[in-house]
Amino acid sequence: MPLINEKRLDEYIRSVKEPYEKSLECLVEIPTVSSDPACKQNIRKAAALTAGILKAFGVQAEVLMTPGHPVVIGTMVANKKHRTVLIYNHLDVQPADYSQWDQDPFKLTIKGGRYGGRGTTDDKGPALTALFAATYALKQGVPLNFRFVWEFEEEIGSPNFEKAIRSRKTLLHAHSILVSDTVWISRNKPAIPYGIRGLLTASLHLETGDRDIHSGLAGGAARNPIGELCKLIAACHDPATGRVKIPMFYDDILPSGKKERRSFEESGFRTSGFKKAHGLKKIRFEKAAQVLDAIWLRPTFEVHGIAGGYRGPGIKTVIPQKAEAKISMRLVPRQDPRKIFSQFRAFVKVQNPDIHVRREAFLDPYLAPTDGKHLQAAVDAMQFGFQKRPALIREGGSIGAVVSLDKLFKVPLIFLGLSLPEHGYHAPNEYFEWTQVMGGIRTFAHYFERISRII
Amino acid sequence: MPLINEKRLDEYIRSVKEPYEKSLECLVEIPTVSSDPACKQNIRKAAALTAGILKAFGVQAEVLMTPGHPVVIGTMVANKKHRTVLIYNHLDVQPADYSQWDQDPFKLTIKGGRYGGRGTTDDKGPALTALFAATYALKQGVPLNFRFVWEFEEEIGSPNFEKAIRSRKTLLHAHSILVSDTVWISRNKPAIPYGIRGLLTASLHLETGDRDIHSGLAGGAARNPIGELCKLIAACHDPATGRVKIPMFYDDILPSGKKERRSFEESGFRTSGFKKAHGLKKIRFEKAAQVLDAIWLRPTFEVHGIAGGYRGPGIKTVIPQKAEAKISMRLVPRQDPRKIFSQFRAFVKVQNPDIHVRREAFLDPYLAPTDGKHLQAAVDAMQFGFQKRPALIREGGSIGAVVSLDKLFKVPLIFLGLSLPEHGYHAPNEYFEWTQVMGGIRTFAHYFERISRII
Repeated sequence: MPLINEKRLDEYIRSVKEPYEKSLECLVEIPTVSSDPACKQNIRKAAALTAGILKAFGVQAEVLMTPGHPVVIGTMVANKKHRTVLIYNHLDVQPADYSQWDQDPFKLTIKGGRYGGRGTTDDKGPALTALFAATYALKQGVPLNFRFVWEFEEEIGSPNFEKAIRSRKTLLHAHSILVSDTVWISRNKPAIPYGIRGLLTASLHLETGDRDIHSGLAGGAARNPIGELCKLIAACHDPATGRVKIPMFYDDILPSGKKERRSFEESGFRTSGFKKAHGLKKIRFEKAAQVLDAIWLRPTFEVHGIAGGYRGPGIKTVIPQKAEAKISMRLVPRQDPRKIFSQFRAFVKVQNPDIHVRREAFLDPYLAPTDGKHLQAAVDAMQFGFQKRPALIREGGSIGAVVSLDKLFKVPLIFLGLSLPEHGYHAPNEYFEWTQVMGGIRTFAHYFERISRII
Repeated sequence: MPLINEKRLDEYIRSVKEPYEKSLECLVEIPTVSSDPACKQNIRKAAALTAGILKAFGVQAEVLMTPGHPVVIGTMVANKKHRTVLIYNHLDVQPADYSQWDQDPFKLTIKGGRYGGRGTTDDKGPALTALFAATYALKQGVPLNFRFVWEFEEEIGSPNFEKAIRSRKTLLHAHSILVSDTVWISRNKPAIPYGIRGLLTASLHLETGDRDIHSGLAGGAARNPIGELCKLIAACHDPATGRVKIPMFYDDILPSGKKERRSFEESGFRTSGFKKAHGLKKIRFEKAAQVLDAIWLRPTFEVHGIAGGYRGPGIKTVIPQKAEAKISMRLVPRQDPRKIFSQFRAFVKVQNPDIHVRREAFLDPYLAPTDGKHLQAAVDAMQFGFQKRPALIREGGSIGAVVSLDKLFKVPLIFLGLSLPEHGYHAPNEYFEWTQVMGGIRTFAHYFERISRII
């Protein structure tokens, strides 16, 4: 007889709506923007608060300090003989440009089951969902121990995560890992990724003078740092197709099989839905197969920001002193960010030796097998939780901690994400939904019971 | 016997140092940034103040309103039988980025004969210098009438100047025109230009989405507006050489003669001095002949500003919603800004039809003969004023009013500039110098006497 009774589970879920919202409110209202040095104290405060929340749920919690932002770890051991699952989430968030938001990004707004605020869907909401589900499962006698790992540096590439976790490797030992930080194909099509892209981020700086100068007096002879930076960016990639032109960039890519591509095509992905979810009128490709290829299987070169010269009203005919850009490359399995960065830096050196390349974060890509008992349990749990069969996909984003956890523990690692494309990961007006929390608690509870039985 | 006695002139100059500084202070302290809509009231105030200054000097002054900023005109008629000179200056200024200045740009600082502040050298200081010289010449009985035209829209391409002046064409009638708004080759080498470049300015806008989106979720398929704008800019020109790649761009250029190039080479221009004056370590060319070619004889394509995406600390892995750039092209004789703009817009349409091109200002290039009595008088006056022989050059900048005044009055037009390269036209920490005022008043007084005798 199953330990998780569906009717009682749904009663539990209804009963925790208010506590769930209260906890989410507490988390959202601390701006945990890991890339912003000004948020350092906020993040420490959030870590302490988080440890408090875990303790209130009966979890033994510890704030692990690192040279950067802390990691909060929690353990909930019912019986040492039981198997253990490690649940990973992150509680840091992307910056929020207030001018693009319709609300204060750091106040939780609740409008009929819709939770607005930075971090609601990425990844504070899913973190709490897993916590509510784990507590419930344990109370129902599911024979499992839990470890929680809540990171505060995911959005900056987890620079201190691996070392921190290694220092508690024995304590955190687990038989499998659950990561809830990924996005479905659409509201009607859950997805379980088995691979994620890697990431390499860098800044480019070019200074050609010691001040802005008059383009009439010096224009023609003086170098223009914006023009030169644009030329380099155009030399690195073709924005019309996304093709990267850095030499040897594609050399190490693991070819993806026909079977994998066919399974993507059957995933229920629709280009029209993708465009609508992200507010895009025209994209690089229209065919679903090409879009999936571009977002899951192929690497990218992206410019996230560029700045230089005059930004005021009208035109100021100056040749600016400097220009800068922030770029990234998403990488796919077998591409090594260290090697690609060297190739990129060498390419820049040849193209324009005065452009300074500053390395930011490196994240390796990750690819897991598409079979195994844990993955089967996840598929079944998602079907139970949402009454919808999930597609097995790759994920275009990057989660640095995944690679570290895989390396450190070498146990099955399962992604069970609850976010929808329209929730707006990293976007303005990010939100999460109670329906996803409900289905999420159902999914997790069912999954925990299933994996507790895996020998 | 000359009417201008050198000793008495120098006494006069010494006696007006304080009034000159007082007047300059009044003008500098009104931020007359013509490109900034927020400065509209400041400019009206400055126009009224300016008319007051002219009246104090015995000049009949009028503020001519236009749909944009006003023009102040003044007439000082001693005898209707005398010949008349029209003196053009502009009292609007470039914007000032406070963060790049070592002082408040809109407070005049005086340090040993050095006048710091936005507009001191471009063009408020030279305007006052001409006024002081004209008043003196008239008092000494130089048989000349004076017209003053002080514009407040030069820095935005004089969009309303021609119409305003046409409305007072009879009143402003003159036998020659003097423009004091140009820059020497170096402190030791005065220069008189006989040609200036034209100008075409435009803004480029590209919006590919309705909000910023996550580069992991959509990267590869989503368009990147910064990447696309960089590609267009790189397609328009090669920033390494300055070569413009817009089709037919060079077709109409009037070839410059060997004689002209040789005379430039003999002008005393040194690349090292040019680099030092503008704070440039490395430029596109090292040979003086190439540099002069690039700044005086060849057209340019310049990016003055670019903006898009994330500008905060670290990296935010978003694909931005939009990007924009401000560009200009300096044009040389026979290039028509209207025609070039059409070619440019057609080129953009082919390269990337979604990029919106907004036309800003158009200025025609200008080229005068290199002989004539007025030019000879100017050369001699400069020699008298500064004890240095001026070079005859072309000027790389653009003064929209010059083309209009030439078209309206069809009389000799002479450039007698007083600014040095290191004064920083359009640059932060702009300044002017009392030594240039002294030499300037000497030069103008001598010039006025010389031209009063031209039949």
